[in-house]
Amino acid sequence: MTAGRLIGVGVGPGDPLLLTLRAVAAIEGTRRVAYLAAEGQPSLARAVVRAHLTPDHEEMPFEAPMRDDAGALAAFYDGAAATIAGCLDAGDDVALLCLGDPLLYGTFVYVLDRLRGRYGVEIVPGITSAAAAAARTARVLARRKDGFAILPAMMEEPRLRAALAAADAGAILKVGGRVRRLQALLKDLGRLDDALLVAWVGWPEETIVPFRDWTDPEAPYFSLVLVGERPA
Amino acid sequence: MTAGRLIGVGVGPGDPLLLTLRAVAAIEGTRRVAYLAAEGQPSLARAVVRAHLTPDHEEMPFEAPMRDDAGALAAFYDGAAATIAGCLDAGDDVALLCLGDPLLYGTFVYVLDRLRGRYGVEIVPGITSAAAAAARTARVLARRKDGFAILPAMMEEPRLRAALAAADAGAILKVGGRVRRLQALLKDLGRLDDALLVAWVGWPEETIVPFRDWTDPEAPYFSLVLVGERPA
Repeated sequence: MTAGRLIGVGVGPGDPLLLTLRAVAAIEGTRRVAYLAAEGQPSLARAVVRAHLTPDHEEMPFEAPMRDDAGALAAFYDGAAATIAGCLDAGDDVALLCLGDPLLYGTFVYVLDRLRGRYGVEIVPGITSAAAAAARTARVLARRKDGFAILPAMMEEPRLRAALAAADAGAILKVGGRVRRLQALLKDLGRLDDALLVAWVGWPEETIVPFRDWTDPEAPYFSLVLVGERPA
Repeated sequence: MTAGRLIGVGVGPGDPLLLTLRAVAAIEGTRRVAYLAAEGQPSLARAVVRAHLTPDHEEMPFEAPMRDDAGALAAFYDGAAATIAGCLDAGDDVALLCLGDPLLYGTFVYVLDRLRGRYGVEIVPGITSAAAAAARTARVLARRKDGFAILPAMMEEPRLRAALAAADAGAILKVGGRVRRLQALLKDLGRLDDALLVAWVGWPEETIVPFRDWTDPEAPYFSLVLVGERPA
């Protein structure tokens, strides 16, 4: 029997119309559709594609532990990968949904790490939250000689500072509880006044505010800061 | 009369299936579809969407001068923006196609610069060539605490070096005639052995080779170098 293929499907940041035709074809053409959800919560990736799911789909939800415990997370991904591998061994393809792009901070990577080399893999790229946030706000990300950086807020501060200083524009992801530190860092770099906080882009709870005006020390988990074109 | 809206439509890097549903809806729902082409050549953006164009569309091709003359380019964009503005003033929406993402090195930006504030603007984000190249090669772009940079090969070398040093992974765009310099720079940074050259991703002439094995001092214009995960 031929083993099935693992299909990593980027579903974009939230707006169901930002699915690609290839993502829709992968979902509609694959019986087994797997996705992750935070423990006790509905899966965001599933919500994005729900219009394309039918009763014929065999849905495979995986509930990820939310506590910050590397061992528990590794065990969770071991288990998810083993379950998926069982389906692939039985000859079924599995479409694993992933918010945004599967290879850019995607949870897909942890399953890929465990199954790479053993099965055929196809990956459908997805629209990133940074591109969607820029589009919603008509902010230029880069032109001609500009560099653009995508940086997680949890990067060590010296590296975050160096990367921001080297790039003309950037998106800082996963702001969470790091609002004050990021505001101070951007102020120090002279980039705070042009920075925008964009939370839940494309979802009903979408919020867009100048980052300097955000007073809560916490930002929603699904939020990013766009650091604009450096003034000439 | 209500003025029309300028719709910047990212069509992705080449594979027509990487169009988003929103891009397809924008093209199918807008009579006037504008696009740029290099002088004397067919428009690549039009080629990506051709399955969605009908005889009812009013196509607006603009032939961009290819010589490296800032004045001629500015005059070209002035003219294109004026022609588009004429349609918007007449109450028609105009969908302006753009390869990749409109706000990331997109030619759309130069039209937006000239019309921003005068007309309603909608922007449809697109899949970037970097995401498509990563997907084709199953290369992880970033995980958890990693930074990822998108950098044009024509950046001044000290800034390119600093940006690459600060990021864990990156995509260097528009390689063109800078092959030797980039190979030397990446070698110097200890990143050459993991770098991949990806040209024309998603097009029939797609080429993927280890960058160290690329011997021609020129790379195709539509090519990028993926600089992989830094080994732990």
